[in-house]
Amino acid sequence: MDKGCRYRGSRDRCCQSLFTSKGKTSSRQALKNYYTPHFGRDLDIEKEILITSGANEGQYSVFVAFLEQGDEVIMFEPFFDQYLPSVTFNGGKPVYVPLHPKLSADKISSDDWKIDFDELRRAITPRSKMIIINTPHNPVGKVFTRKELESIAALAEEFNLLVMCDEVYETLVYDKKEHVRFATLPGMWDRTVTVGSAGKMFAATGWRVGWLIGPESIIKPTLAATTRIVFCSNSPLQEAAAAGIEEANDRKFFVNQLSEYQERRDILTACFDKLGLSYTHPEGTYFILLDISTVTWPDNYPFPESVEGRGRDFKACWFIAMEIGVSSIPVSEFYCEEHVSIGERYARFAFCKDVDTLKHAAQRLAGLSKHLARS
Amino acid sequence: MDKGCRYRGSRDRCCQSLFTSKGKTSSRQALKNYYTPHFGRDLDIEKEILITSGANEGQYSVFVAFLEQGDEVIMFEPFFDQYLPSVTFNGGKPVYVPLHPKLSADKISSDDWKIDFDELRRAITPRSKMIIINTPHNPVGKVFTRKELESIAALAEEFNLLVMCDEVYETLVYDKKEHVRFATLPGMWDRTVTVGSAGKMFAATGWRVGWLIGPESIIKPTLAATTRIVFCSNSPLQEAAAAGIEEANDRKFFVNQLSEYQERRDILTACFDKLGLSYTHPEGTYFILLDISTVTWPDNYPFPESVEGRGRDFKACWFIAMEIGVSSIPVSEFYCEEHVSIGERYARFAFCKDVDTLKHAAQRLAGLSKHLARS
Ligand SMILES: Cc1ncc(COP(=O)(O)O)c(C=O)c1O
Ligand SMILES: Cc1ncc(COP(=O)(O)O)c(C=O)c1O
Repeated sequence: MDKGCRYRGSRDRCCQSLFTSKGKTSSRQALKNYYTPHFGRDLDIEKEILITSGANEGQYSVFVAFLEQGDEVIMFEPFFDQYLPSVTFNGGKPVYVPLHPKLSADKISSDDWKIDFDELRRAITPRSKMIIINTPHNPVGKVFTRKELESIAALAEEFNLLVMCDEVYETLVYDKKEHVRFATLPGMWDRTVTVGSAGKMFAATGWRVGWLIGPESIIKPTLAATTRIVFCSNSPLQEAAAAGIEEANDRKFFVNQLSEYQERRDILTACFDKLGLSYTHPEGTYFILLDISTVTWPDNYPFPESVEGRGRDFKACWFIAMEIGVSSIPVSEFYCEEHVSIGERYARFAFCKDVDTLKHAAQRLAGLSKHLARS
Repeated sequence: MDKGCRYRGSRDRCCQSLFTSKGKTSSRQALKNYYTPHFGRDLDIEKEILITSGANEGQYSVFVAFLEQGDEVIMFEPFFDQYLPSVTFNGGKPVYVPLHPKLSADKISSDDWKIDFDELRRAITPRSKMIIINTPHNPVGKVFTRKELESIAALAEEFNLLVMCDEVYETLVYDKKEHVRFATLPGMWDRTVTVGSAGKMFAATGWRVGWLIGPESIIKPTLAATTRIVFCSNSPLQEAAAAGIEEANDRKFFVNQLSEYQERRDILTACFDKLGLSYTHPEGTYFILLDISTVTWPDNYPFPESVEGRGRDFKACWFIAMEIGVSSIPVSEFYCEEHVSIGERYARFAFCKDVDTLKHAAQRLAGLSKHLARS
């Protein structure tokens, strides 16, 4: 599994440089202090914490370190779009397992997007190497339940899968929903790498600071990979992130941030409610999936070439952007070709904007009422 | 050659995000203003400049974008040690062509390290995809002459090679030696990507800001790769680097920095002269190769296991670090196994330290006189 050290016999030199490449000691110490209660274990800053150039580069490095040509990586659809190229660039083969939304109800919550566990089991083959979990989930907003994670854990155990648990939205979980860390489930620490991001925690994605937490067996080869890719994460913003994490609890930063985001979320959902539109009420993240199946446009509406031949959601998002002046992301973009039909019912709206901007957007979105097919 | 867009058909989305991923417009503009006279062409900030997370990640991204399994990459030995794993991680095969030092003279300059052009030609095969040039050169300090670069250019043309010209030490060229940019040689722009680093320019390697300059045919696939690896370079330090570049000429920053480094270089060379040791007088960079073939140690000196079985230079560097208190890098580290014997004659000393530290180091190094075999 470990191909992190496949370079020429220069272990010593490599191991020296790796001290810097892991991240500053003080920054790793800050992460340890913050996360130790969350993981319920005394994290080892030398072996179990690695600071990366954003969560993204950390995830890329895990793929570099562990994937061999043809290894299969299971991911739930819809998925954060970087997973796909990051896996294929490193010789891996993505295998998709869709989350199925409840379609009957008018109002659904992100918890109504379900895994079909038989489908998941059928997706596992002798080439399955890894499974990616993303909780809270982009773009659904789903916060996986303990029961769901336990069922995944049983399969990970049975088929000896490496687990990447992407928890970059960990501080954005609403309505007192419990955020369960996969790595804390019985037996899972040894096979799980947890992904975090200062960008998401502090609304500072431009800093490019993220981290990986996991057992030495995963962190060590990944460190060798990240050392070759970027050498190390930038030093000044790593310190800034560490300072933030150190003071966050005392200043109630995450608690306050959460209620701010909740207010922002509610501006958009109130607007959708008024329009009588269905959407997925998100338990986490700063995304809302709007059901755009009732949005209509003139037959002769002039769509650009880039939108023709894509899912219906591409047209809807284009139309809404042009006519209403609010942009959103077509959700079929987060599905493989085969499953586009599940995603094209939705557009993803983001509420990581200030209250005024969101109020302004809601005013504009009210104009959608003219373009809805009423049943 | 272009495998940068081998992911699922999401060109539009991808191309949107690439605007950020290239680097901030203002930062690319600053690079354009600085480099346009150096390259003698009106650089296009949208297509020909890409800001990366250090030179290293830029170089890694070029390999991701262009190397197919088994592609050969020619590099001159000794070489910056990251090239090797960056190439092999991406399926490439390094092919080594040594620089040969003049051994007869007592005092040699970095210009006395020569390419054997027949040897270079013999190293080229039908699988040769790329050649890496590093000028000014780490660790030799060599600044390649126009004539040498022209001979490489002729081969690049004849065998259709992609050229990576690593010029991260471009602002550290001493003694009025001419620094020739490979990309400015006739016909070479289209096949050359030039590598730069804010870390080296401003002695701020912890910022992780670098850049690539080249034709759209190289920059575009590399942009697709870097977007997947780190998404983009960090924003605050990118702006800091741009501010530095904008003001550098007016403030004579590079001129002053150069004379400071020259002073630092001279402290070490004076010390080596006094000891009667041979070294390679560097025309560029902040490295000096010291000939350590006359350094001796007791037969029973207790070397650690990690040094046993490596080149003689590993022992010398260990001995000097322990007994004299100055650390250096064994140069066989920069050679492939087969050519270790060329490198083990040298230790690399770095003078990117302040004058006081270097004076202190020189005082300590005087103690080497007790450990020299006199002829
Ligand atoms: C689910 C998920 N994981 C990872 C990332 C990447 O985070 P970072 O900005 O720290 O690279 C994102 C960013 O959008 C994301 O949505
Ligand atoms: C020759 C050479 N190229 C590239 C780099 C990497 O530069 P950066 O720190 O910008 O990644 C170095 C750093 O030591 C170097 O010596």
